Formats: sequence, C-alpha cells, structure tokens
Amino acid sequence: MKLYDGGRAPNPRRVRIFLAEKGISVPLVPVDMAALEHKGGAVAERNPLRRLPVLELDDGTILTETIAICRYFEELHRAPPLFGTGALGKALVEMWQRRLELNLFMPVAQAFRHIHPAMKEWEVPQVPAWGEINKPKALEFLEILDRELASRQFAAGDAFSIADITGLCAVDFMKPARIAVPETFGNVRRWHQALKARPSAEA
Amino acid sequence: MKLYDGGRAPNPRRVRIFLAEKGISVPLVPVDMAALEHKGGAVAERNPLRRLPVLELDDGTILTETIAICRYFEELHRAPPLFGTGALGKALVEMWQRRLELNLFMPVAQAFRHIHPAMKEWEVPQVPAWGEINKPKALEFLEILDRELASRQFAAGDAFSIADITGLCAVDFMKPARIAVPETFGNVRRWHQALKARPSAEA
Repeated sequence: MKLYDGGRAPNPRRVRIFLAEKGISVPLVPVDMAALEHKGGAVAERNPLRRLPVLELDDGTILTETIAICRYFEELHRAPPLFGTGALGKALVEMWQRRLELNLFMPVAQAFRHIHPAMKEWEVPQVPAWGEINKPKALEFLEILDRELASRQFAAGDAFSIADITGLCAVDFMKPARIAVPETFGNVRRWHQALKARPSAEA
Repeated sequence: MKLYDGGRAPNPRRVRIFLAEKGISVPLVPVDMAALEHKGGAVAERNPLRRLPVLELDDGTILTETIAICRYFEELHRAPPLFGTGALGKALVEMWQRRLELNLFMPVAQAFRHIHPAMKEWEVPQVPAWGEINKPKALEFLEILDRELASRQFAAGDAFSIADITGLCAVDFMKPARIAVPETFGNVRRWHQALKARPSAEA
C-alpha cells in the first residue's frame, strides 16, 4: 500500500492527520504539487481527476477522495472511532464533517484559488469576484460554529472526529487565503488552538 | 420523526429517493422553497444554515445535510446497503458519491444558481462568470464518468448506491441549469435512463 501525498496542501494533510490519530503508518510517495507534478505522470494515471491524495492498495486498487480514503482506514482500524459510533453518532459526525467542509473548507479554498497570484496556473480562469464572495461566506459559518462550540469541546460532540480534522485544516488554510479569524470568535479560537496542540497536527 | 422537505429541489429529492429505495416511510413537512419559506420559521429555527432537508427525531434531535440523513437511515436499516459493504466497498461508494457530488452535482448547482434569473433572490450576488465556468467543469467530469461506465452498470460498481442517487439528481438538474448531456456520452445516457426508470425516481 502507498499514499501519493501532496505535502502542504490541505487535502493530503487531512489524510496524514487522520492516520496519525489512528496510529497507522503508510508509505508516502511525495508529489511536488507546486511544480504541478500531480497534473501528469503517476497521479494522472491513477486518478483521472488529477488530484491528491491517492491511495494505491497492494493489488493495484486505487482509492481517491480524502474522506473515502479516511473511511477505508476507519473500517479496517476502528479505534479510536473518528467517524462516530452508533447510528446517530455517525450521522452527527457526517453532518459536521460536511458542514465544515462545504461551508468553511471549500469557501476558504475558493478564496485562495481564485484570488492568490500563485494559483494562476491552477485555477484557469481565476474569477476574483467569486473568490471575494467566499470570504464572508466562510466568516458567516464561523459565527455559527462559534455559537455551537460554546457548549462542547469538539465540532461533532465530546469526542474528536474527522469533522475536527477538516476544521483544523480549513482554519489553518485561512492564513494563505488571507481571511482572519475575528478576535470575537473565542470558542472557535479555543477549539482551533486545542486541535493545533495535538501531536497529529504536525503530521 | 419528521422530514422537512423541499419539493423539487435536488437535495430533498436525494433523501426521498434514498428512503424509497430502502422502503422507509417518514412523515414529510412540506416547505415552500420558491417562497423562500426555508429562510425563516421552522427551518431556520432547526438549521442555522437555513437549508433543506432537515430531519427531526422524536426527541427533538436535529439532523441536517442530505448525506448525513441518508447515513442515519443506512445504519438503522441496513438492507439494501446503499453505502456499500466491506471496507473497500464502503470506501468506493464514498469515493464515487463524492466525485459525483463535487464534480457534477455542485458545478451544475453553481451554474443554475449564478445564471438563472429565478435564482436572483437566492444567490446574492450572482456571479454569472462563475456560473459559466461551471458548465464545462460538469461536462469534463461527465466525460470521465462515461469512460468509467463503459465497464459497469452503476457509478460505484455492480450495485446501485447513494452515488447513483446523487448522479441521477445531478443529471436531472442539468435541464434547468441549461447544460445538455452530449449525445456522444452513450454510457452516461444509458445509466441515467436506467436510474430514471426505477420507481424511486418518482419519490
């Protein structure tokens, strides 16, 4: 088994954090995304969408999509559960993973890709007006999240989950996307600091 | 238990199709999305993101996000499995559900919301340039999907799954978004016709 990895990019990072939290070690194949290496060669042969991460199993089976790769390892190594337990617990983790991904991670990524000069060759054409609209979208969601985090430790409840991994990578991604976390969102800041302090954040 | 439902909108429809495939009946609370009824009242009280569908359990617990609601029912009623079976099977369904959602369903929705005159009050402000960019994005993915479907019956393999439900709703949504499925994509057209012919498509 090997994992084609994209270094600092937030999706490959989500998988590395997930594996670190599970205590699973998978051989990494580094891909230089800055040199657009994932747009051809080994990655393009394995993923027609030409994106990372890509997991290759020993029999050659290919798995792509961050959350699908994480779910594969969740099924093989149940402890600690990072996708929730029980019907309702699993549904709540899925709900918060999606809320964080669709309303924070993605708007931040859109702002970065459609505005940052370094993304000109990645996102063709860039639509700066679309990038700008996504900044307030991300902040509107953070306000909702801040209210939710007043009464619990983690995004989906009292246990750390894949939803927190998505949240950590999204908030860290706000820096290159040039969106500041407002000082007034104290619960979000406390939560983000706690996630950043976990050893897995360095994975 | 009750399901706040949004009629013709594609996300509420995904849940209704899922329930029909499972043979589960849930009382529906109709919400008039055309009159923006989901932006206030009962929906806004239950979902701070003010979107549908919303599932309310008997104890008042709220579940939102289409796929999270579907997963809740999958855990309670395993047959027929619509999220796959076994670690690899579940991961492959997740992969294809996400590929279809992120690369087809969402681009089609963006084209619709940012271009269609009826969406002016929904998507403020509309960015037509962003809507237009999403049309070729959707078609690029359909071309990849057409190659994949040459060798199998359904999106994620030989069994119908949640990935097909997302695909059906996305392709049907192309009509109001004014994106035609090219005649040359014969495998996609065969697959779409087969999904449309299932009784659940009318749910």
